[in-house]
Amino acid sequence: MTNVPHPDEFRHNRAEGNDALRTTGSVVESFFALDGAAYAPGALPKGIKELMGLVISVTKDCEECVYYHLEQCEQEGVGREQVLEALHIAMVGAGSVTVPLLRRAIIFMDRLPGLAKPT
Amino acid sequence: MTNVPHPDEFRHNRAEGNDALRTTGSVVESFFALDGAAYAPGALPKGIKELMGLVISVTKDCEECVYYHLEQCEQEGVGREQVLEALHIAMVGAGSVTVPLLRRAIIFMDRLPGLAKPT
Amino acid sequence: MTNVPHPDEFRHNRAEGNDALRTTGSVVESFFALDGAAYAPGALPKGIKELMGLVISVTKDCEECVYYHLEQCEQEGVGREQVLEALHIAMVGAGSVTVPLLRRAIIFMDRLPGLAKPT
Amino acid sequence: MTNVPHPDEFRHNRAEGNDALRTTGSVVESFFALDGAAYAPGALPKGIKELMGLVISVTKDCEECVYYHLEQCEQEGVGREQVLEALHIAMVGAGSVTVPLLRRAIIFMDRLPGLAKPT
Amino acid sequence: MTNVPHPDEFRHNRAEGNDALRTTGSVVESFFALDGAAYAPGALPKGIKELMGLVISVTKDCEECVYYHLEQCEQEGVGREQVLEALHIAMVGAGSVTVPLLRRAIIFMDRLPGLAKPT
Amino acid sequence: MTNVPHPDEFRHNRAEGNDALRTTGSVVESFFALDGAAYAPGALPKGIKELMGLVISVTKDCEECVYYHLEQCEQEGVGREQVLEALHIAMVGAGSVTVPLLRRAIIFMDRLPGLAKPT
Repeated sequence: MTNVPHPDEFRHNRAEGNDALRTTGSVVESFFALDGAAYAPGALPKGIKELMGLVISVTKDCEECVYYHLEQCEQEGVGREQVLEALHIAMVGAGSVTVPLLRRAIIFMDRLPGLAKPT
Repeated sequence: MTNVPHPDEFRHNRAEGNDALRTTGSVVESFFALDGAAYAPGALPKGIKELMGLVISVTKDCEECVYYHLEQCEQEGVGREQVLEALHIAMVGAGSVTVPLLRRAIIFMDRLPGLAKPT
Repeated sequence: MTNVPHPDEFRHNRAEGNDALRTTGSVVESFFALDGAAYAPGALPKGIKELMGLVISVTKDCEECVYYHLEQCEQEGVGREQVLEALHIAMVGAGSVTVPLLRRAIIFMDRLPGLAKPT
Repeated sequence: MTNVPHPDEFRHNRAEGNDALRTTGSVVESFFALDGAAYAPGALPKGIKELMGLVISVTKDCEECVYYHLEQCEQEGVGREQVLEALHIAMVGAGSVTVPLLRRAIIFMDRLPGLAKPT
Repeated sequence: MTNVPHPDEFRHNRAEGNDALRTTGSVVESFFALDGAAYAPGALPKGIKELMGLVISVTKDCEECVYYHLEQCEQEGVGREQVLEALHIAMVGAGSVTVPLLRRAIIFMDRLPGLAKPT
Repeated sequence: MTNVPHPDEFRHNRAEGNDALRTTGSVVESFFALDGAAYAPGALPKGIKELMGLVISVTKDCEECVYYHLEQCEQEGVGREQVLEALHIAMVGAGSVTVPLLRRAIIFMDRLPGLAKPT
């Protein structure tokens, strides 16, 4: 059972890892650019796209992707209630096997000022 | 290689199948109610939630779920460009194994007046 | 959207396909033998093991595996209510993306005398 | 590579996490109630249902779900040999990618008095 | 239970579908270009890369992807025994839930002159 | 977020865990033998088969399997560029949800003398 990382530690490790991955070839560079293009604001605002990335991440069981999209949601000004409703849709869509990752998501959210549970 | 169903045929078969499933026990009834609750408008509008259901369906390779959420998107007035951007996010998120289902999604969209390619 | 096969047609196609697969090498032969060993009655009766095969098949979205394990359940004298409870557990475990396959499972069950809905 | 948690620590963290998740909305409350209903004894005894939850958890690669269902199996008096046969079915059903989680399951079982390897 | 398509029909439908998908936006164009770049010969020959695409397709249960990579293997001069060994690795890796798709793969191979069973 | 293990620690834990798993029944013994048979050199050399095991492991999100196949690749004399091309194929095939595991794979490779980044 892994621990939920602190956002700063997560950001640092993720950036470092992506830099190393990027040096392995142009396919990675292009993939990252493509990913950026898909999430750029268009007919849908970026915040909504980040929520979509979040539900994909939960239902595909990608822990670090969940943390990343939560951070992006916070940065785009998505509200806590909006994030929670997205998580609930993911839970219903992919069932009880998502619950452990949802538990972590809630813990991580509480470490992000913009998404933390109001006290 | 299955054929893409016509929306009316799809709706009919889905409704009939769900009715049969519903008679198998209260767990199904409760699950369907829960699903309805998760997709009800709240902090996020229903159209955005249907787009989330769509990306989950593509990335989890659920063909009939894709058709269902496309229909719901049309009904909620979600635009073609918004649906396409959601499909692109799903493609990037879950990779080339989503492509066959995306091909079907495009065919099905063209049979829904509100989402069809403008001529 | 594929059609649900009739049990006799399904059995015939499956047997023919497995025979062809078996001729492709000893790894397949050994795998099939291993599969037989795992499902042989032991500390758990065969009927219960077939129910387990069924829930795996639903949650891993393996349509033909679902039909096969339903047939095996019928042959082992597993009752309709027991099968339905197993399907409900699969639905809760893997969420709404299982629903299309559950709809097919109900149709297939109704074509198996030992598992059909009582009239 | 995560460490296998001790059962008491696991139980504590899981309960705490589920409580936090529960406060995020009625969809979660309803989902947990539904999960309880699906696993309640009926045509199948609770122990058999927990074994089904276990095979789903292994084949869907849900580590904490595996620990939870192992605990529930122990509580229902399911025997070690029955659990092992269920794990073997999961291994054959979902292949060698289940092996790392099966290794953890064996370690966790040995920490549960009712399921530990006899010495 | 879907039917295995004939290679010409498959090629035609796939090309038509990909053309339609490509018109939906530059993200798709870029993704297809990226896919082409990943499969281009480099430190590994193209035939080996197509075999890798094949095992991914089997283990991720992507039926049309399997047909596509089989065709590409044939075109690259990969031999029947090499393809079968790759399929066996996929079977062991992802377990018995791959068997239905493997049955289809064998049927499709027999329709490709370069990969058909010698008579 | 788990830490990437050191190869020696990984090897030790894996061997110990597999030994414990092997004692749980003949199904496991047979499965391990089958796995060995599938990866034995035949029409394809062992190194290529290990690369296939690697792409399966990435796309099925099996972290320890990735480390194992990287070690096997090193042992078979597969080169760093060949491994990287295989990882890129996996990334394109299964999308951005593979990225966290790819980050770990790169770190682990750098701890294997035969696959480390040249300095």
